[in-house]
Amino acid sequence: METKKIFLTEDEIPRQWYNINADIKMNPPLGPDGKPVSPDMLAPVFPMNLIEQEVSAERWIDIPEGVLEVLNIWRPSPLVRAYALEKALGTPARIYYKWEGVSPPGSHKPNTAVAQAYYNKEFGIKRLTTETGAGQWGSALAFACSQYGLECKVFMVRISFDQKPYRKTMMATWGANCIASPSSETKAGRDILEKMPDTPGSLGIAISEAIEAAVTDETGQTRYSLGSVLNHVLMHQTIIGLEAKKQMEKISEYPVVIIGCAGGGSNFAGLAFPFVYDKINGKDIAIHPVEPAACPTMTRALFAYDHGDTAGMTPLLPMHSLGHTFIPPPLHAGGLRYHGMAPQVSQLIDEGVLEPKAFPQMATYEAGMLVARTEGFISAPETNHALACVVDEAKKAKEEGKEKVILFNFSGHGLIDLGAYEQFLAGQLSDYEYPAQEIEEAEKILEQYPKPEHIKSR
Amino acid sequence: METKKIFLTEDEIPRQWYNINADIKMNPPLGPDGKPVSPDMLAPVFPMNLIEQEVSAERWIDIPEGVLEVLNIWRPSPLVRAYALEKALGTPARIYYKWEGVSPPGSHKPNTAVAQAYYNKEFGIKRLTTETGAGQWGSALAFACSQYGLECKVFMVRISFDQKPYRKTMMATWGANCIASPSSETKAGRDILEKMPDTPGSLGIAISEAIEAAVTDETGQTRYSLGSVLNHVLMHQTIIGLEAKKQMEKISEYPVVIIGCAGGGSNFAGLAFPFVYDKINGKDIAIHPVEPAACPTMTRALFAYDHGDTAGMTPLLPMHSLGHTFIPPPLHAGGLRYHGMAPQVSQLIDEGVLEPKAFPQMATYEAGMLVARTEGFISAPETNHALACVVDEAKKAKEEGKEKVILFNFSGHGLIDLGAYEQFLAGQLSDYEYPAQEIEEAEKILEQYPKPEHIKSR
Repeated sequence: METKKIFLTEDEIPRQWYNINADIKMNPPLGPDGKPVSPDMLAPVFPMNLIEQEVSAERWIDIPEGVLEVLNIWRPSPLVRAYALEKALGTPARIYYKWEGVSPPGSHKPNTAVAQAYYNKEFGIKRLTTETGAGQWGSALAFACSQYGLECKVFMVRISFDQKPYRKTMMATWGANCIASPSSETKAGRDILEKMPDTPGSLGIAISEAIEAAVTDETGQTRYSLGSVLNHVLMHQTIIGLEAKKQMEKISEYPVVIIGCAGGGSNFAGLAFPFVYDKINGKDIAIHPVEPAACPTMTRALFAYDHGDTAGMTPLLPMHSLGHTFIPPPLHAGGLRYHGMAPQVSQLIDEGVLEPKAFPQMATYEAGMLVARTEGFISAPETNHALACVVDEAKKAKEEGKEKVILFNFSGHGLIDLGAYEQFLAGQLSDYEYPAQEIEEAEKILEQYPKPEHIKSR
Repeated sequence: METKKIFLTEDEIPRQWYNINADIKMNPPLGPDGKPVSPDMLAPVFPMNLIEQEVSAERWIDIPEGVLEVLNIWRPSPLVRAYALEKALGTPARIYYKWEGVSPPGSHKPNTAVAQAYYNKEFGIKRLTTETGAGQWGSALAFACSQYGLECKVFMVRISFDQKPYRKTMMATWGANCIASPSSETKAGRDILEKMPDTPGSLGIAISEAIEAAVTDETGQTRYSLGSVLNHVLMHQTIIGLEAKKQMEKISEYPVVIIGCAGGGSNFAGLAFPFVYDKINGKDIAIHPVEPAACPTMTRALFAYDHGDTAGMTPLLPMHSLGHTFIPPPLHAGGLRYHGMAPQVSQLIDEGVLEPKAFPQMATYEAGMLVARTEGFISAPETNHALACVVDEAKKAKEEGKEKVILFNFSGHGLIDLGAYEQFLAGQLSDYEYPAQEIEEAEKILEQYPKPEHIKSR
């Protein structure tokens, strides 16, 4: 029997996160006055210990013992060789995946949720607010808050809230309170509901609501927690790629193609950034963040300054953006329905280090079905985007007759997202091409802001 | 950081199953004529290679390479020390669990589904039929059939089918066809529907339908697959206990209390039987199968001969039974809604080797909530029965000031059973005590059959 899963022991869990800010130059976030944001301006939103991480230029940041103890519930996660998928595709490629579905909520999201809950608790915070799209992030933060005894309130994008009632129950089981967004509990929510009472909601709107709910708490004991986009979030996820590197070393392998789906960018960055470090130090590897063709932030939108949320409460961030007022079509990969992209991922795309790909919805579910019937695990609709790219690359390897090593992030299972599979199996899903005209409109919206520089980090 | 998870390598996966029939004496299954059933009488229902396993008296049975290759997708499963639960209970007990939620369908069930699909495929069978209660078993067989290219048809107890629409989609994703039972597709189903059109269904009825669908297929290429009760099924599950023993040896621990929930008995037996071997060879350990107080097969029903299904299609089996016409109340632990109990488990109860326990529904959800907020994983409603017993034993250890080692089977996660948690959180669940009068009626029904002997195996 060939070795399928490469495990690490608990002693081998990485003790430091990798901070890519040590290795690239970034356009700074800008305040309403167009000037760079200072750390203290973020203090009403995040605890200062996380703000320090956000702006740190240290390459390695120690993971506190109190974080490791909780990550230890499910980490290190296995690295798995996808023999059955390879065989089904008849590819000479060797395909490996990092299996993040083993966490209690079933995705990579608790890697940062646990760290954020820990730092907030350390800082004396009692209550966290957040948004969630598909529900993976809200579930993860609910789980993390239950581990540290924090209260948790989650604004869930309405279309996902309606499609996935079990997500709310999951969060409630961990003690969190989840409500549909836009809600009438915030000014941001009420404003949207007045204009668009039937809106499916969006991550951008839900972020506005969650930030407002945090900063308007007069006790000062509430902060906001973000599940992607920001540097400290991506950094907490690098434990995925750091583990994967150790695991590949154990079997003397090294990937030449690295793939992850990208909504805000966190699971992608978590796997890829430790390898980006190798690439900017000379390794010849292709690194692909993958998005839906229906929400083509990285592949078709401008690299521009824009707000991270719909109401414009966040600083202006340098990123690929479809415009912060964009409400994406209700495709089922809720975690990928975001107008922007993590600034670090956007910067690396602008520099040509990363090569983004977009796939239409049907191809992603076809890839998900193939993986379920070969590798066995049913994947999250977000992960299916990575899978579509893996299938594509494996087929290319077959055409080229190349034995290349592909590594992808199997970011979560889809057992609470089966409604989408049901629609796919019933023939009710279809592709949606984002209209060129809307891209032009987004570009007009973005004209009002300063332009980021096209930096070459090296 | 203290070691929380004890892993085995893939090389350490057990290469043999443990067959308890080598170590106990059993009353034989009886045919309609009251005489012992011969193996060939079962041939229309099961493939001969599995029938041979069912009646084997060999203590160790080799696990085929083709089975190990698929088990290898998720096995060996971790053994986990429940530090956070211990701390919350303030108990001196050291609590360990075998975590079976890591399989693709999320429970222990594929341990035997994979083996059964393999042996049927080897025997030239093209199609399997089965029943499912909560959906764990049907999902597991769907997964297993997809691995070996078999067709799969699942009769799902109606109340679960209605409460858990995602289960059907899960099975369909793996290519299986799942319909509600009783259905109009079988005579057994039609007969029940005529008498009780609004019945919630039961495992007994669904078994009747699945057997009928298998034996009436004129091509002869369809067989039936059972997810519990029979000896070969329990045997395939012993990989759980055999792994757990190796894992406990690695940390120089040995359990004095062993706990598993029991509907038909398979997850319980899977963990417990390798330790039962130790007990009947002199080890002083307490072994508890746990059932719902609302379906008190082991704790209140007779040890008698009864059919395994409602229509009386199966041989008479020597087991604790509430009577094969029993339709259990619609409690949410669908996997425990069964009138009977595995004959081997029943025999060991009758001999006093096993000490069954029953817990009311509310206590089981309270235990599940505690575990979700300490150990992190949300457990299946079935598993919650084991958890209630673990909590009870841990509290006893506290009262007695004893450092005892408790081992339980965390048989599956509850992420597709969140509807039950939703009702619990909304205060809509309550306890249900099985009425003494119905026990008396069951005993009257069982009077028509021969009586099993009270055997002492040693």
